[in-house]
Amino acid sequence: MEDGCIVDVRPWRSASGPATDVVDLGRCALLPAFVNAHTHLEYNVFRGRLEDIEFFPWIGALMALKASLTEPDWLASATMGAAEAAAGGTGTIADCTDAGAAAAGAATIGLRGVIHQEVFGIDGKQTVQETVAALDAKLARMAVALQGSLLTPAVSPHAPYTVRPELMSALARYAGDRGLRLCIHASESQAEGELMLRGSGVIARRLAERGIGWETPGATTVAHLARHGLVTNRTLLVHGVQVSRTDARAASQAGASWVHCPKSNAKLGNGVAPLWALRAACPTGNLGLGTDSAASNNGLDMLEEMRFAVLMQRASRRRIDAMDALQALEMATLGGARALGMADQIGTLERGKRADLTAIRLDRLHTAPCYDPASALVYAASARDVALTMVDGRPIWWRGRHAANLAAQRRQFRTAARKVSGAPR
Amino acid sequence: MEDGCIVDVRPWRSASGPATDVVDLGRCALLPAFVNAHTHLEYNVFRGRLEDIEFFPWIGALMALKASLTEPDWLASATMGAAEAAAGGTGTIADCTDAGAAAAGAATIGLRGVIHQEVFGIDGKQTVQETVAALDAKLARMAVALQGSLLTPAVSPHAPYTVRPELMSALARYAGDRGLRLCIHASESQAEGELMLRGSGVIARRLAERGIGWETPGATTVAHLARHGLVTNRTLLVHGVQVSRTDARAASQAGASWVHCPKSNAKLGNGVAPLWALRAACPTGNLGLGTDSAASNNGLDMLEEMRFAVLMQRASRRRIDAMDALQALEMATLGGARALGMADQIGTLERGKRADLTAIRLDRLHTAPCYDPASALVYAASARDVALTMVDGRPIWWRGRHAANLAAQRRQFRTAARKVSGAPR
Repeated sequence: MEDGCIVDVRPWRSASGPATDVVDLGRCALLPAFVNAHTHLEYNVFRGRLEDIEFFPWIGALMALKASLTEPDWLASATMGAAEAAAGGTGTIADCTDAGAAAAGAATIGLRGVIHQEVFGIDGKQTVQETVAALDAKLARMAVALQGSLLTPAVSPHAPYTVRPELMSALARYAGDRGLRLCIHASESQAEGELMLRGSGVIARRLAERGIGWETPGATTVAHLARHGLVTNRTLLVHGVQVSRTDARAASQAGASWVHCPKSNAKLGNGVAPLWALRAACPTGNLGLGTDSAASNNGLDMLEEMRFAVLMQRASRRRIDAMDALQALEMATLGGARALGMADQIGTLERGKRADLTAIRLDRLHTAPCYDPASALVYAASARDVALTMVDGRPIWWRGRHAANLAAQRRQFRTAARKVSGAPR
Repeated sequence: MEDGCIVDVRPWRSASGPATDVVDLGRCALLPAFVNAHTHLEYNVFRGRLEDIEFFPWIGALMALKASLTEPDWLASATMGAAEAAAGGTGTIADCTDAGAAAAGAATIGLRGVIHQEVFGIDGKQTVQETVAALDAKLARMAVALQGSLLTPAVSPHAPYTVRPELMSALARYAGDRGLRLCIHASESQAEGELMLRGSGVIARRLAERGIGWETPGATTVAHLARHGLVTNRTLLVHGVQVSRTDARAASQAGASWVHCPKSNAKLGNGVAPLWALRAACPTGNLGLGTDSAASNNGLDMLEEMRFAVLMQRASRRRIDAMDALQALEMATLGGARALGMADQIGTLERGKRADLTAIRLDRLHTAPCYDPASALVYAASARDVALTMVDGRPIWWRGRHAANLAAQRRQFRTAARKVSGAPR
């Protein structure tokens, strides 16, 4: 490579002339760094703090816990999240951040990707203009944090049940005018579907309790989002558990991409996404894989996420051909790159792309023998086997260490964890 | 502890008098060593060699591959399997072995448990008497390999579609006369159910192709096994995917125990076992968790197996209360001990039980913060975080090393893997 760009891919023995700067990584699989297409890095401090709570109350409990943290806490949590991702072979993330800390956290670690500033607004406490102005200010601040990084700012209207329609439309215009990418939690739970189609269920009851008016769209989430301009070729739709073939296709035809988060969906009791329908709807392969946050997963291990993806598809469809290891690897690399509109830069190891790669040891007791690297990676390896993560030609995780010095952030992270431990839920 | 027995469990600071022989393991969870209630240690060499094959052809392909190996190959494979189990915190196994190598392999590593000699015989090529005599000879040989170990020999009639009824009855009598434990693959696949109830499906067709007579029992697997004396209070029934509440209860009332193998069931496309029914049927908690073999899992990581168990139950039932971390921990320890009739010796850390324990680091990036050890263990830790595995007061895995010297077996394992790599499937 030269200047962070891959200039050739070949067996090293065939180097013409004397090989210089050869790094022998041992018996590793060398592959494109993973694209974790859905994270909330700043929620790392919540890992294990919100167990056994039903999905919608879980969101409320998460919101309540968030009040206990300060800006340095958020930064430490996001930095630890980014560090965990990098140590597991991830080079690119698509993050959703409320506190905004993911920007500086991911930049510190050296990750590539997109940082979506989350926007909430189901009630009318703030006018649409006020909310958009606040977003504008947050993005300006984020731009400073992202200077010199490989990360771009973007917008995330959180979900159809936390953003009211007029605000959706305004955010769609705001992002469209600036060419910003969008990310939305969509069709995640049964409760969401009930609210959208019939105005009933646990979310509807909660909105009523809070005195928040809700005009039932009588449409699926995808149709509702499309109506308000949010289903575009810059849009990442995350989850897609409760999604019909028609909706999956409609979203794809509008150029939007889906992200599959199997472990989070399972742990929160939301079920198994119909990956066959999402795959069929995305003929160009713009389908990503994401861990979601440590608050629901509870880890950011893309190797384990691939394993769960295959096993859950096979278990739920009782078919061995429901998914295989290579399909999982594609989702975790090129699929995510395509979903983020970055496939010209990353997602494969080939001449002309950026040098974003990971090396994963396949010579350990739990991965031996290795007859086929794809099988060993997807079914036996884990984040703990990652020897190297490189982004743009720079090792951000190597020899068991991050490039960044994390001592201060680790200390702050422990402080933040003590607050979370003591906070009421 | 004294002589491999726990004499007290207490915070170490409260030791009366000067503390001697205190080992500080750091920020670890200390818990009973795992009971992996279903393994085929000798199949470790097949890890990743049999991908993407439907369940019943997969069994055939496995059988074909087995022909390529010699006795030293089997021993190396079983030893590596036992080593992988120990390195992941497992102290006790319930293994099924065809080649018989699991006995010496598990003994070398220092595991506790039960080694079931597998018996096959669906056709009449061997008479029942010949098969039983061969079993008797194998068990005599196994007894030699197990001398001085913590392992006991037992019998495994492989499955209802590989053992004909008259042989089942003979094996039930043989084991009953000697007080030997039994283990059977039961109600694993839809194909098995079709064969048992209607004499149709892929297994029935395969038997017909091979010219093997099959008298359809017209009964479920559990009823069929019970009719032939195999459902006893010494019986381990493995899988229970296709099992009704009635059958689960009937087996339990006869004193038999179930073993749940969620990853293997998922990967082979067999589905998700109705754990709620199995739990309800086992009021004394005699319900174990097993990884099955590296040929179908593809690992022997009980921490990951617990994680999959919870997530698959939650995903398939779309209920967060379908299973929680503590229930998984119980299945992986005390539940397995009960299922094996060993709960008086192992499964909990308490005075009078054998000192079988594991220490698991919870201070790493991917497990921090730790608000609740059960959550951290089940949802975030993996076999790679195991600092110590102790059996009968003896560390069999500590400081990244096994107590046994495995250099020669590692070499032989590589030789075996080369054979498997080149063997036709």
